[in-house]
Amino acid sequence: MTLVNKQIILAERPKGMPDQNTFRFVKQDVGELKEGQVLVRTLYVSVDPYMRGRMEDTESYVEPYKVNEVIEGGAIGEVIDSKSDRFQQGDVVLGMFGWQEYYIANEKELRKIDPSLAPISTHLGILGMTGLTAYFGLLDIGQPKEGETVVISGAAGAVGSVVGQIAKIKGARVVGIAGSDEKIQYLQEELQFDEGINYRSTKNMEEALKEACPDGIDVYFDNVGGEISDAVFTQLNRYARIPVCGAISSYNLEKTDLGPRVQATLIKKSALMQGFTVGNYANRFNEGAMQLGQWLQEGKLTYRETIKEGFENIPNAFLDLFKGNNVGKLLVKVADRQYQN
Amino acid sequence: MTLVNKQIILAERPKGMPDQNTFRFVKQDVGELKEGQVLVRTLYVSVDPYMRGRMEDTESYVEPYKVNEVIEGGAIGEVIDSKSDRFQQGDVVLGMFGWQEYYIANEKELRKIDPSLAPISTHLGILGMTGLTAYFGLLDIGQPKEGETVVISGAAGAVGSVVGQIAKIKGARVVGIAGSDEKIQYLQEELQFDEGINYRSTKNMEEALKEACPDGIDVYFDNVGGEISDAVFTQLNRYARIPVCGAISSYNLEKTDLGPRVQATLIKKSALMQGFTVGNYANRFNEGAMQLGQWLQEGKLTYRETIKEGFENIPNAFLDLFKGNNVGKLLVKVADRQYQN
Repeated sequence: MTLVNKQIILAERPKGMPDQNTFRFVKQDVGELKEGQVLVRTLYVSVDPYMRGRMEDTESYVEPYKVNEVIEGGAIGEVIDSKSDRFQQGDVVLGMFGWQEYYIANEKELRKIDPSLAPISTHLGILGMTGLTAYFGLLDIGQPKEGETVVISGAAGAVGSVVGQIAKIKGARVVGIAGSDEKIQYLQEELQFDEGINYRSTKNMEEALKEACPDGIDVYFDNVGGEISDAVFTQLNRYARIPVCGAISSYNLEKTDLGPRVQATLIKKSALMQGFTVGNYANRFNEGAMQLGQWLQEGKLTYRETIKEGFENIPNAFLDLFKGNNVGKLLVKVADRQYQN
Repeated sequence: MTLVNKQIILAERPKGMPDQNTFRFVKQDVGELKEGQVLVRTLYVSVDPYMRGRMEDTESYVEPYKVNEVIEGGAIGEVIDSKSDRFQQGDVVLGMFGWQEYYIANEKELRKIDPSLAPISTHLGILGMTGLTAYFGLLDIGQPKEGETVVISGAAGAVGSVVGQIAKIKGARVVGIAGSDEKIQYLQEELQFDEGINYRSTKNMEEALKEACPDGIDVYFDNVGGEISDAVFTQLNRYARIPVCGAISSYNLEKTDLGPRVQATLIKKSALMQGFTVGNYANRFNEGAMQLGQWLQEGKLTYRETIKEGFENIPNAFLDLFKGNNVGKLLVKVADRQYQN
């Protein structure tokens, strides 16, 4: 009897907002394990805004997804069979195997995680790429100093919510921009942000920023781009630093994303904008993960996850990212662990 | 008998392109020298694009000019009277006294220059703020490595022409963008740029850049902003660095300068944009001036000046900056030296 693998493949490249036609569910035999390989059953998959970029057929920092191939992405699984000395049945592993129920991995593709330290899902969130993105973008590029003002767009999202907490640890005044009163409440009450701005209910973002940032803006951690960022640019201080992490407002645009050119502002303020992706810091992941883990254990970091259930709901969860409703990291739980060691 | 000083003051803040109504010529008594002061007669004044920014009443890295006050800017003069131990008649000095024929300076406002080392006008150009702007912008922010491709807009201008030569010294492949065939010829034949693009006669800048930069663009030294920069952005390599030095295309716009937002490109390429002004590097001016002087003496740097004659022609010379006709540094010669030591 062969094991059947359910997969979600890219059915067609989306024009504008992706929808159900972007994806197709397919079934396929899992196949045979070879020496050095590991059979993994998916437990959690991550859905992330950057995946939208990989659906385009344009050169980027990661390969575009191929039509008719599985959507690749961060995932956590359980080893259910192994022909590798490095993994055994019941091990919980992290990899990029993406949107499928099973995966035959070469042992080098997987990293073992310790389920006793923190909930395993955190390795796709605050202790994983999400937390590391926040950590390196803020500290390496943003370099907030005590007493400086840090503004974060997409502040209640997976990355933004970690950025703000790290900025608070570093002694900065933290202002979060998000899209609902519930999110603002979360930022201020649970995460101790100093101020929050609900951009959907604010009529004049420039005025709101001026009020929330009476001393101007020293660091702007940009997750969204678009008009929100245009407004932030009007309030930058001299030597402002802008880690450019995401531009979710533009990912589904079919036309060129037009806005005020930034050159004159950058000159006036001697400001720095730096685009980055977490992969740039691969050789420092250990440093980041250890620090994040320590802060988490010390209670200096907190996090929220929005966990959807069921393999069939992965495309919906992904599409939800662009509706701006989720707080914290968005994950899909695909299966429970079968083995406990 | 009192000495009469001719001055050019800001008559009104320009809307859009400045014109003759922007300025007014006035006369005023020079006044009396006090202890520690020096009377300077202006020999050369510098006209620079950044001065347009100071005509606006908006916060910037330097104070806006005040209406009815003298236009301040880099100038070279000769000491004709001194009540300071540090200066004597006949000394050639550099200061920010700007568009006036005479100036009473406190001794701390002036720096003595040695007329035997290089033509004194070079201290407003390749050995002055212009050269230092090129030096620090390119080397501190651009950081070109041997074999990398450096693209420069406004390449035949005062700053651009120095940037390209320094990039060549550092072993980069250098591509200059300028607005006439004569300028392109100058860049390639006199300055040894590898390629030149005349943006006025080029129909498709993206294609022209692709052809001139088959390995993509690693450093883009931006003097102009606008559509030229939009095109350069399409050809950036991963980890590209963009020193943002000027945005002359936008200085005289009356409407918001709209263009494609840069965030998504910065992320895809992990690219860095940094606005700067030479004043940021004040504590390293000596280093820069010594290195530029050495390269000049070794024949590794060459320069051109466009020198207009006569105090009355200063406003015209300034307005010429925005017509894009000058090559190299634009100066106005106001008087000859009276004393030779």
